[in-house]
Amino acid sequence: MGRYELQYPKNATNIVRNYELETIHKLVNTCPILHVSFTPPDSPFPVTLPMVGQMGSFARPSADLGDPLDLYLHGYVSSRVMNLARAAGPDGLPMCVAASHVDGLVLALSAFSHSYNYRSAVLFGHATLVEDNEEKVYAMELITDSVVPGRWKDTRLPPKNSELQSTSVLRVKVASGSAKIREGGAKDDKHDLEDEQVVGGIWTGVLPVHQTVGEPIPASYNKIDLPESISNFIKDSNTLGKQHSVDVARK
Amino acid sequence: MGRYELQYPKNATNIVRNYELETIHKLVNTCPILHVSFTPPDSPFPVTLPMVGQMGSFARPSADLGDPLDLYLHGYVSSRVMNLARAAGPDGLPMCVAASHVDGLVLALSAFSHSYNYRSAVLFGHATLVEDNEEKVYAMELITDSVVPGRWKDTRLPPKNSELQSTSVLRVKVASGSAKIREGGAKDDKHDLEDEQVVGGIWTGVLPVHQTVGEPIPASYNKIDLPESISNFIKDSNTLGKQHSVDVARK
Repeated sequence: MGRYELQYPKNATNIVRNYELETIHKLVNTCPILHVSFTPPDSPFPVTLPMVGQMGSFARPSADLGDPLDLYLHGYVSSRVMNLARAAGPDGLPMCVAASHVDGLVLALSAFSHSYNYRSAVLFGHATLVEDNEEKVYAMELITDSVVPGRWKDTRLPPKNSELQSTSVLRVKVASGSAKIREGGAKDDKHDLEDEQVVGGIWTGVLPVHQTVGEPIPASYNKIDLPESISNFIKDSNTLGKQHSVDVARK
Repeated sequence: MGRYELQYPKNATNIVRNYELETIHKLVNTCPILHVSFTPPDSPFPVTLPMVGQMGSFARPSADLGDPLDLYLHGYVSSRVMNLARAAGPDGLPMCVAASHVDGLVLALSAFSHSYNYRSAVLFGHATLVEDNEEKVYAMELITDSVVPGRWKDTRLPPKNSELQSTSVLRVKVASGSAKIREGGAKDDKHDLEDEQVVGGIWTGVLPVHQTVGEPIPASYNKIDLPESISNFIKDSNTLGKQHSVDVARK
């Protein structure tokens, strides 16, 4: 929207650094697996589920990444989560959703100065089950296109009623969130840096890390050549991922 | 130990499939970032932190991956986690720790049949702060060697007292755990598979995904050539990662 950068409120739930909606929403949207945690009332332990998700606004689909958005989650939704979300009613089930990317292994002189380059976001919010079929289709399109851009329109459409019935989507109304990012090279203490024997004997630097999409493996029932949309996605994803891991290591 | 395969107890906290200690511990040990969740008493939300960790046994360091082990966690331990772990006393702070790996994007005819190949583990347990310096060093060696095998002995040793003082390590006594693994190719419903127009118009298959370690970027103060231990690690890690993503896609 460009007026000004919206930020999530800074409060005791936020542990760290960056509160810009755009930064946080982008980290969530580019993370292939989100870790979704909630606390069942009868358990001392929180429960964490790996799920896929995307930020979106069903009420205003043209909203930008920097606008207030909901998080739509899809995955193996156990009857327990569904029952808890249903039992929570319109208030929703309190959840924490984490999105983390590793960008590099940072090797220093001291083991205690080793680190990762990484980007990590958490969102806190309340989850309710999406009951409306139109909203469910909206969310499934967002999520499918996050796997491979434009994939939704290439699949068999429209969705069948049975598919909509058996698919659970959670909508998380976001209450707050934050991001934490580590970039740059190795850092060591003055004492180690001034010790010639130490500096002369230990390799220091960054091993950049990125996700690679490999050679496509067609299904046994596949009948067609790989479409350009998929080969372009693979090329772009690998080029950008590699470049990002190198760029942040050099900062 | 080879006598028989130890399993975590199946109970209501476990959502899924595999309860073998060896499988679960291996998934945790090979995951560069673990998602660690706990519920502060004054908050409706669980809090999730990205941390690094390794399974180990300080009492019996020669223990196998299939043996009962503790989880050692290291990372930015906020004063809040530390205070909560301290306040929990010897009972420890209840935690859920999740380790997830993405192995492939599974593209089907229907958007609703899309999936990931993945391996995911969760552990439930109680965390206490490690106060003993010997145990802290044991954990830091495990964790440093999980970044690059053999790295610990190549760093500046021994650890300084100030490093041990400023480093927080959590030990999680594991109460239960489980793993969930998805392998194989695309799967679609009979109706779609029998529709020639659908099958003839949509590419289906797996895009294998793996983590790649790129070209090392030396620190500004690095003085030596890349040691073979690091170049071998990069080669092995990339070869094995790629091979695994292809192998599971073909299952």
